[in-house]
Amino acid sequence: MPIGSFSSSWTRKLAPLAYRFTQNPAHFIHTTSTIATKIMTSVPTTVNKTAHEFDKGNLDAVLTRRFFYAPAFEIYGGVAGLYDYGPTGSSLQANILDAWRKHYIIEEDMLELDTTIMTLDEVLKTSGHVAKFADWMVKDTKNGEIYRADHLVEAVIEARLKGDKEARGIEHVEVEETDEKKKKKKKNVKAAAVKLDDNTVAEYEFLLAQIDNYTGPELGEIIRKHKITNPTTGNELTEPVEFNLMFESNIGPTGAIKGYLRPETAQGHFVNFARLLEFNNGRVPFASAQIGKSFRNEIAPRQGLLRVREFTMAEIEHYVDPLDKKHARFNEVKDVVLTLLPKDVQQEGRTDLVQMTTGEAVGKGIVDNETLGYFLARTQLFLTKIGIDPKRLRCRQHMANEMAHYAADCWDFEIQSSYGWVECVGCADRSAYDLTVHSVRTKQALRVQQRLEKPVVVEKFDVQYEAKPFGMKFKKDAGAIKETLAGLPKERLQCIKDEFASKGSSLVKCADGKEHEITPDLVRIEPITVTEHVREFTPNVIEPSFGIGRILYSLLEHSYWAREQDVARGVLSFPVLVAPIKVLIVAISNDPALTTIIHDLTRRFRKLGIASRIDDSGASIGKKYARNDELGTPFGVTVDFASEWG
Amino acid sequence: MPIGSFSSSWTRKLAPLAYRFTQNPAHFIHTTSTIATKIMTSVPTTVNKTAHEFDKGNLDAVLTRRFFYAPAFEIYGGVAGLYDYGPTGSSLQANILDAWRKHYIIEEDMLELDTTIMTLDEVLKTSGHVAKFADWMVKDTKNGEIYRADHLVEAVIEARLKGDKEARGIEHVEVEETDEKKKKKKKNVKAAAVKLDDNTVAEYEFLLAQIDNYTGPELGEIIRKHKITNPTTGNELTEPVEFNLMFESNIGPTGAIKGYLRPETAQGHFVNFARLLEFNNGRVPFASAQIGKSFRNEIAPRQGLLRVREFTMAEIEHYVDPLDKKHARFNEVKDVVLTLLPKDVQQEGRTDLVQMTTGEAVGKGIVDNETLGYFLARTQLFLTKIGIDPKRLRCRQHMANEMAHYAADCWDFEIQSSYGWVECVGCADRSAYDLTVHSVRTKQALRVQQRLEKPVVVEKFDVQYEAKPFGMKFKKDAGAIKETLAGLPKERLQCIKDEFASKGSSLVKCADGKEHEITPDLVRIEPITVTEHVREFTPNVIEPSFGIGRILYSLLEHSYWAREQDVARGVLSFPVLVAPIKVLIVAISNDPALTTIIHDLTRRFRKLGIASRIDDSGASIGKKYARNDELGTPFGVTVDFASEWG
Repeated sequence: MPIGSFSSSWTRKLAPLAYRFTQNPAHFIHTTSTIATKIMTSVPTTVNKTAHEFDKGNLDAVLTRRFFYAPAFEIYGGVAGLYDYGPTGSSLQANILDAWRKHYIIEEDMLELDTTIMTLDEVLKTSGHVAKFADWMVKDTKNGEIYRADHLVEAVIEARLKGDKEARGIEHVEVEETDEKKKKKKKNVKAAAVKLDDNTVAEYEFLLAQIDNYTGPELGEIIRKHKITNPTTGNELTEPVEFNLMFESNIGPTGAIKGYLRPETAQGHFVNFARLLEFNNGRVPFASAQIGKSFRNEIAPRQGLLRVREFTMAEIEHYVDPLDKKHARFNEVKDVVLTLLPKDVQQEGRTDLVQMTTGEAVGKGIVDNETLGYFLARTQLFLTKIGIDPKRLRCRQHMANEMAHYAADCWDFEIQSSYGWVECVGCADRSAYDLTVHSVRTKQALRVQQRLEKPVVVEKFDVQYEAKPFGMKFKKDAGAIKETLAGLPKERLQCIKDEFASKGSSLVKCADGKEHEITPDLVRIEPITVTEHVREFTPNVIEPSFGIGRILYSLLEHSYWAREQDVARGVLSFPVLVAPIKVLIVAISNDPALTTIIHDLTRRFRKLGIASRIDDSGASIGKKYARNDELGTPFGVTVDFASEWG
Repeated sequence: MPIGSFSSSWTRKLAPLAYRFTQNPAHFIHTTSTIATKIMTSVPTTVNKTAHEFDKGNLDAVLTRRFFYAPAFEIYGGVAGLYDYGPTGSSLQANILDAWRKHYIIEEDMLELDTTIMTLDEVLKTSGHVAKFADWMVKDTKNGEIYRADHLVEAVIEARLKGDKEARGIEHVEVEETDEKKKKKKKNVKAAAVKLDDNTVAEYEFLLAQIDNYTGPELGEIIRKHKITNPTTGNELTEPVEFNLMFESNIGPTGAIKGYLRPETAQGHFVNFARLLEFNNGRVPFASAQIGKSFRNEIAPRQGLLRVREFTMAEIEHYVDPLDKKHARFNEVKDVVLTLLPKDVQQEGRTDLVQMTTGEAVGKGIVDNETLGYFLARTQLFLTKIGIDPKRLRCRQHMANEMAHYAADCWDFEIQSSYGWVECVGCADRSAYDLTVHSVRTKQALRVQQRLEKPVVVEKFDVQYEAKPFGMKFKKDAGAIKETLAGLPKERLQCIKDEFASKGSSLVKCADGKEHEITPDLVRIEPITVTEHVREFTPNVIEPSFGIGRILYSLLEHSYWAREQDVARGVLSFPVLVAPIKVLIVAISNDPALTTIIHDLTRRFRKLGIASRIDDSGASIGKKYARNDELGTPFGVTVDFASEWG
């Protein structure tokens, strides 16, 4: 006997009443798996999502009330930049990560990793993070309040320019801020309507245009020259001090081993490269992938989930022959259309977007190579699959001055939300930087040996020593000099040989910093011809790196709308793939017989892995549907009196 | 046309040759999903796994060679207690976690959480971790080497007793160490064969029996009295110093906000209790669940994955009415058979295991209540589902002296491996401890309000004040006294009332530690009768807490065996559910036509979410199967010349 109808919730009409459950287990499973298939493949029916303008206040209220996320330790007053995900947010995140894992790790046969968060300081010294992963900060000399130096200078100068315009009676047109980079730096600073002289205005405008390029000492100079103080207190500021953005701790009880919480998962891939390569039978290309938490001890976190101190990342490191960045599966994605903002366009001060297929973008050299193009296309497919609006998604190429210290080329997927265009996925070509520095530091060969089909003949230099006099002259430094010479490239050896000829000597600088003068009577450098059967190289790394919290927040904005008939009734129309709860189960009345059925029903759904939720409160059916629209539940089952369970 | 046969790998015979693929997409998907269903439900055929004794050396070699896991930052020399999971280990872990999530979170409708690792110090002060989550350590006074005080004392005393036996000519029988607690403390210490007097032997034996109960100062006393020095150097040791096992860091740039890396995920649940309760419409029972990393800065980590400084946990906090610990679904698990080691048995010094159904264990009061019993049964089902050998699995009840500072009752799932019986899942009744302390500290009500079906009449005390003289007498302390009295239980108010009658006054101790004498002329305490329509209570928390790394390592040992015919050929026979790779794909020759087919085949498998791996090396088919036995790949497809693709 049928026991309930499988009806639609807000988005999908799945032929209501077509699926009726019975208690017969085989029939139940058959019906449910039929539905499950439909669930995963069904397409939303058309609803008018744009009847009302997006209202961030309403969305925020829903996110808090339905516990998508909330400030961590809220009952203790919270800490800026730390958030906890509640039941709905966690499930949404888990579903996004599951989709990511299937889309990349499983489908592309990537080598998964789970490396430690606590990272030995030496690793991050080598990668450059201990020296360079820092922001400049200034302190109020009296109350100790701390600001990011560049943000503060920018805010004060902007306010003064605004004050100048007011004084001159020029209407101040607020430039539309669509760029996240700009927005995040804004501090609410006001300045009096004071007219500035024309030179100062010009100087200020130049300063703003260059704000990203100043060093700490330069910012200090600007602060002193332009008498910038703490806008809140009027107190003087300290000189800018570098603040490293990594959380620091000690490993073990002695205090002798220092560690940092990783700022990215990437270094965990690189230090395992030799094992990964062996696992892949010594061949490239291949990719490693990791999902996990990373940390960034921001000076002043803001903007909710977009700039936090602890966040989930999903990172891919794809190792590729630097001479061959073709991709075996490029053909499968060549027709995927990308929305591009290339660097040339930006350098002309424009933000016009160009739409073209991945094949065309790589063919024209706008995107450098097939591998980078392949990941851009796959990422476009992933983001739209989980529900990001393709019209609010663009690939922006980095300009030379904004690239990370390790990157050779970089494209960001930026997603548009109420915060402007926000970087959510970075696709960087990190070149051979990381593998090279770790290899040099640890003296481990992080290189690929490729058997050549045809041996090649190579011109090299052979270095020979007059062992006895060489040893007597350089004593304990002799070994270091030999090691240094053995590691020099061909070009440098040619220089030394030339200097031998022209000056009769040459200087060699060893790893310990000491310089030594070598002479041709002790060191002979002769050209030789070698036949090589193996080519050895350090692979380049293409890195698609996903900020999961940013993607999740953007998805919330893109999924949120209000019913055409009722602006107060918010809906989160997630794709079924990522919806935290797939099916709402309600009974048409509080009759105990129906209550038994809905509890049995949800148990059966859940046993099949389909997240379902009962609403057995006293509210009306309409109210129940509305409440579950807010959770983004796409389907509903209503159990009515026509139902008989047995 | 058929293109390849779906044949069995080592464990399962799936009617070889019955499934043949063709390039026709519909047929391929149909065949694959038929197989996928079989894969997930198939039962291993019988193979002789016990022909050879377990060899930990061989297993370790496989785990390293096939990169299940390796020391973190190995190329930098590594750090004790930190491990990275490689491709096979990560996928195994991901599959275990996926199974866990489905078994608990989805199937039981738990509220998932993802809370921060970085935890405000105040939270962990309240929970007791800042004061109590510590071990005592001693330092070598000359070389600074550090030991856990209790481990060192135990090792030295044991060695001396052994030396005594040798001197007396008594053969020393090594007691079989099956208990992980004992084993982990062992340090390889040797003492000379010196005869001790009988009193000293008795004292040493008493000391060893009590070793878990000594405080730091007591351990210091023992070290001095028995002249215990660093056994390696002979140098004297410092007094025992407490070392907190949490990693500490600063949040933000000021240094004013201190944080710790969480030692458990549980506190993240408790501080969110009010929001979780609201999400669940104010009703208990319900459970929250979280999977994530936790940290423990061990003094001296050992034993591979069993005692590490960073580990993945999966924790459930089930909130239940302290007066009603029944479980609605208990009936579904009452017949699950548990292997129990109750505390009574242990207190008699025995380790006899008792087998009984969950229903019987709860019925007889051996397991305290239905909810605890329910989780024990569900956990038994989970662990055996992922491949833990039920014969090497037991539930051991904690004795009173070994319980954590917050626990009211506790059962551990212990899994037997070459390290003995190791705690892998703890099922603790944490009572109302955590919610109460957080509530008191933050003044937030972390309580459940339950509408009573019938109102109840309650006898209480009403406290009234002579406002003016009371205020004049106690001045600024008046508020604190009122607050203290308002928070006192009925029994305490009765005492005060009694003291008023007998002595004419009573002492009240406020939260700031000050004591005040109150008198009946200023404070009146009168019995009143109140009709209550709502019952308010702090729920108790039942906590099943899973150490995923320990379970994973135990599973590796339980899954490892060597072929009867070839002891060198190791096999990891994972259940299909958790196997990192499901299908091995090989071609019968290196013919380019076959190579194309296997690459196409693996792509199609992976697109359907089935992890498959090609072996296209030059090895023989037999060798290829052997290599993939080591990865625990249960199925294989061989593409032969009978195959035609298209």
